[in-house]
Amino acid sequence: MSQSDVAEYNARRAAFINDDRALRPDYANAAGRSAVEIAADRVIREIRAFEASSIWDGEHQNIQHPFPGMEFLTGGDVIIQTRLFKILTKMPKGALLHAHLEASVNAQVLLRLALQQPAIHVRAAKPINAFTVASTLPEFKALPKDDFSDGAGLTEPSYVANDWVSIRKARGTFDQALGGPLGFDKWVTGALTINPNEAYRTHNTVPKIWKKFQETFATSTPLVFFAPIWADYIREFLITSIDDGISYIEARVGFLFKYMYGPDGQENVPHREWLIAFDKVVNDIKDDLKKQGREDEFVGARIIYCTVRFISPEELEWYTEDCLTLKQEFPHIIAGFDLVGSEDDLRPLVDYIGSLLRFQARQKELGLDIPFMFHAGETLGDGTKADDNLYDALLLGTKRIGHGFSLMKHPKLVQICREKGILIEVCPISNEILRLTSSMPMHPLPSLINHGIPVALCSDDSAVFGNMGLSFDFFQVLVASEVTGLIQLGEMARDSIRYSTLDEEAKGRTMGLWERRWDRFVEEIGTGM
Amino acid sequence: MSQSDVAEYNARRAAFINDDRALRPDYANAAGRSAVEIAADRVIREIRAFEASSIWDGEHQNIQHPFPGMEFLTGGDVIIQTRLFKILTKMPKGALLHAHLEASVNAQVLLRLALQQPAIHVRAAKPINAFTVASTLPEFKALPKDDFSDGAGLTEPSYVANDWVSIRKARGTFDQALGGPLGFDKWVTGALTINPNEAYRTHNTVPKIWKKFQETFATSTPLVFFAPIWADYIREFLITSIDDGISYIEARVGFLFKYMYGPDGQENVPHREWLIAFDKVVNDIKDDLKKQGREDEFVGARIIYCTVRFISPEELEWYTEDCLTLKQEFPHIIAGFDLVGSEDDLRPLVDYIGSLLRFQARQKELGLDIPFMFHAGETLGDGTKADDNLYDALLLGTKRIGHGFSLMKHPKLVQICREKGILIEVCPISNEILRLTSSMPMHPLPSLINHGIPVALCSDDSAVFGNMGLSFDFFQVLVASEVTGLIQLGEMARDSIRYSTLDEEAKGRTMGLWERRWDRFVEEIGTGM
Repeated sequence: MSQSDVAEYNARRAAFINDDRALRPDYANAAGRSAVEIAADRVIREIRAFEASSIWDGEHQNIQHPFPGMEFLTGGDVIIQTRLFKILTKMPKGALLHAHLEASVNAQVLLRLALQQPAIHVRAAKPINAFTVASTLPEFKALPKDDFSDGAGLTEPSYVANDWVSIRKARGTFDQALGGPLGFDKWVTGALTINPNEAYRTHNTVPKIWKKFQETFATSTPLVFFAPIWADYIREFLITSIDDGISYIEARVGFLFKYMYGPDGQENVPHREWLIAFDKVVNDIKDDLKKQGREDEFVGARIIYCTVRFISPEELEWYTEDCLTLKQEFPHIIAGFDLVGSEDDLRPLVDYIGSLLRFQARQKELGLDIPFMFHAGETLGDGTKADDNLYDALLLGTKRIGHGFSLMKHPKLVQICREKGILIEVCPISNEILRLTSSMPMHPLPSLINHGIPVALCSDDSAVFGNMGLSFDFFQVLVASEVTGLIQLGEMARDSIRYSTLDEEAKGRTMGLWERRWDRFVEEIGTGM
Repeated sequence: MSQSDVAEYNARRAAFINDDRALRPDYANAAGRSAVEIAADRVIREIRAFEASSIWDGEHQNIQHPFPGMEFLTGGDVIIQTRLFKILTKMPKGALLHAHLEASVNAQVLLRLALQQPAIHVRAAKPINAFTVASTLPEFKALPKDDFSDGAGLTEPSYVANDWVSIRKARGTFDQALGGPLGFDKWVTGALTINPNEAYRTHNTVPKIWKKFQETFATSTPLVFFAPIWADYIREFLITSIDDGISYIEARVGFLFKYMYGPDGQENVPHREWLIAFDKVVNDIKDDLKKQGREDEFVGARIIYCTVRFISPEELEWYTEDCLTLKQEFPHIIAGFDLVGSEDDLRPLVDYIGSLLRFQARQKELGLDIPFMFHAGETLGDGTKADDNLYDALLLGTKRIGHGFSLMKHPKLVQICREKGILIEVCPISNEILRLTSSMPMHPLPSLINHGIPVALCSDDSAVFGNMGLSFDFFQVLVASEVTGLIQLGEMARDSIRYSTLDEEAKGRTMGLWERRWDRFVEEIGTGM
C-alpha cells in the first residue's frame, strides 16, 4: 500500500475513535478546555505512566500481584506512596452523593468517641481469649446508670457470657496476652472493618462478604446512634470530607430505628432530633470555616431518608409518612428517599410498589418533592430480583441510581439514563471489596462513561472499607483506564454537583465555587505541584 | 394505592422488561417457539434452580466457595456431577468458531500420541529432582535417528543439562521418588495445562497467567507440529468435538513456523502438506461417520490461517502471500485470516495496516475472499492498544471478532456489530482462566446478548483449560444468568452456523441438520431425558 492509503486509513481511524467516544463528557466538551487544564491532564498522564512502570512494577512486601487498580485493601499502602494520590487529595471533588452516614467515620475515631462515653457498654457471647477472639463480636449498648452489674472484664475467666461491661473497663482489663487495651482496640476495629483476608480469601464471594459487611453495621449502630456520639460523628464525617475537597454532601441516613439512645441510656430520641443535631453540626462547621476564611470550601449537607428492604410493605408506610413529616419541618435537610440493604437477599422494590406509589401521591397532596434515589442493580445477577430493581427504580422515576452495577446489561435502561439524565452513583472501592468486581480494570465504569451516562464517584461506606473521602475512589478510577484522565475526573466532579438536589441558585453558586478551585488546582499541577 | 394502580404498574413493568430485552434472540424470536422447546426451556430452568440450591449450596472438598458459574478449574468437579451438565453434553452445539487447533486435544492424549513416536525426545535445563521438578519445563523435539547421545535419564544425577533423551526412556527412567513413569506424565501434563493454583493464586493476574499460558504452547508445539502426530492430533480433536455435539469447525491454525518436523526428524514439511493432512482427516472422519450412519453429525472443518503478532509488518507479507497461495490450492479449507498472541503485550493491528490493506488488495486482484477473523479486545484495558484493536478490526472489515471482551465499552462498536451482524466469538472459560473475569457472573456476555450482538460460544484452548468440547462453556453461561435459558443457548448455536464461512447452500443444509437434532434434543428433555 502507498503511504497515502495508510495515511487515509489513520485519518479514518482517528475520526472513528472520536466518534465512539463522542458521548464522554471529556470528549464532548473538548472545545471548552483551557490550555492550563489540558497541560495538567498531560502532566497527570505522565505521572500515571511513570508510576505504573516504577512504583506499581516494583516489589512490595505482602503484595503478590501489585498493579494499578488492584484490590484496595491490599493496594492501599502502595497507593498512598504515589505522587498521583497526593495530588488527588488536593482535587476539589464536588459533591459526595452516595455515602451511608453511619458508616463514614474511621473506626479508630468512632472507638475514641465511644470511649469518651461512660454510658457505653460492651458484651460478648463468650469470654474472650485466644481461641474466641477472632470469632466473637463485641456488642455495644448505651445503658442507663446502674442498669448493669459491672462484673468481670471480657477476657477474665470469670466473665459471664453476655454480661455488660463498661467500655473503658473492658478495654482497661483486656488480657495482656491479647494485646491489652490495644488488643481491645484491634478487636473492636476488626469488627467495624473488612480486612484483606476476609475480602479476598475467606469471604471471597458477594454473599459471604455481605455477611461480614452487615456485621460491621451491627457492631457500629449502637455507637453511632447514641445521641452524645451522633453529633460528634457527623462532625468528624463532614470535616474529613471537607478536608478531602468535598464541598457538598447528600448523606444517606438509616431511619430504621424509630429512636436512638439518649445520654440517659434510654431509647427515646426521635428522628426530628437526629435532624436538628445534623443541622446544627452543618451550621457550626460552616461558621467555623467562615472564621478560618474557608467558607468557599463547603456549601452544606443534606440527608437522603433511608430504611431497610427487610421491612414489610405495610411497615414502609410508617416510614414514608415519617419522611413526609420530617420534610415538612426540615425541607432544607431531607433531599430524597431510598431503601437500602443487600439487593440479592432482601425484598425487591417491586414488593413495595403500592406503598411507593402512595408515597408519591401523598407528596403531591402535600406539595412536597422527595425524589427517589434508589439503590438498584448492586449485583452480579442477570435477571435476578436485584438486577430487576433497575426497572422499578426507573419506572418509579428515580432521580439517581445508587450503584447501578448491572446497568450496562440493559440497552433500554442505558438509553433512558442518558436521555433523561439519571446519574449513576458509582462506588468503585465498595463494589470491589464487596466482590462485584475483582479489581478496578474489571469494573463497568468505563462503559457507563463511554455511553454518555452521567456518573459521580462515591465512597459508600468508608468506615468499613477505609476509603475515607473520595481521593481513593478517584485514584482507582484514574489508574484503571488509559482514556480517563484528569479532565474526565473533573467532569465527574461537575456532574456530582449538577445532579445533586441543590436548587438552581445554590447549584450555580456551588458550581462557581468549584470551578474556581478547579482552576487553581489545574494551575498548580501545571506549575509542578 | 388501589389494586388497579398496582396492576397498571405491573403491566407497564412487564412491557418495559420486554422492551429492554427485545434485541435478544430468545425474546426477538419468541413467536416462533414450539411448545416442546418452551417446555424444555422450563425443565432446564427447574433443574438449574434445584441444583443451585442443592449441589452448589452443599459442601465440596477443597472448594471454599462453590457457586454456579464459579472458577472452572476448581468448579469443574462439581459441574460434572450435575444433571444440567449431563444434558448439555447431548445438546447439538452447532459450529465451533474459535478454537486454536494446536491447543485442542487433552494433554494426556497428546502425551500418549508422543509416546508412540520414537523420534520424539525431551530435555530439561537441569536434572529433574524434587527441587527442580516444579520449576523446570520439559522441552520436546523430533530428532533424526542417531542425531543425539542417548545418555542418562532426566532424573539421573549424571544427566547433563539440555541433553536430549528419547521420550520413552525419559519416562521409563523417571525417578520413582518423583512418581516414576506416572510422575513423568504428571510433570509433562502439568506443563501443558494450567492448574487452579496457578490461575487463582500464584499467577492470578492477566499478565502472569499469560506467561504460563504461553509456556504450555512452547511445550506442546514441537509435539503437535510433528507430522506423524499432526494427523492423529487433528483426528482426536475432531472426534472429541463431534462427540460433544459440534457439527462444524473453523479451527485457527498457527502457521508461524514455515515447516513442521517430518517423520525423519527434519524440519521440512511445508504448509500445503499440513492442509493435505487436515483435509484427509476430515474426509476420513466423514467416511467413518457415514459408515456408522452418523453422517448428519458432522459437515466438515476448515482452517483460519493465523500467525503471531510479534512478527514485523514486513514479515507479515510473507504470511499473507502464503495464505493466498494456500487459498488458491485449498479454497475449501482456508476460511479466514487472523493474527494471534497476547494483545496486551504484542503488536497492535494498527502496526500492520499497510500489509493488511495490501493483503486485501491482493485478494481482489486474485479474485479470492479470505475474511479477517481478528482477535480484538481480549483485554481488561480501557483505551490501551489491545482495546483499540477493536477499532482496527472493524475498520478492516473483520467478519467476526475473537473475544471482543472489551467491546461493551464502545457504544459505536456495539452499534456496528449489531447492525452489520459481526459475531463475537465469546470464550467464557478461557476468559475466566486467563483472569479477564473472576467468574462467569462477572463476564460481559449478558450485555452482549441483551444488546443484540450475535454471539457464539467457543472453547479457545481446551487442551490448556480442560474445557473439552463446548458443553462446559455452555454450562457456565447457562448457570450464570437467570435470563438465559435453553432457548437462548439454541440461538447461540444457530448463530454459530449463521456466522460461519460456509456458503449459503452448505449453511442451509447444516442449519437444517442442526434443527432436526435440536428438535429431538428438546423433545427428549421434555420427556424426561
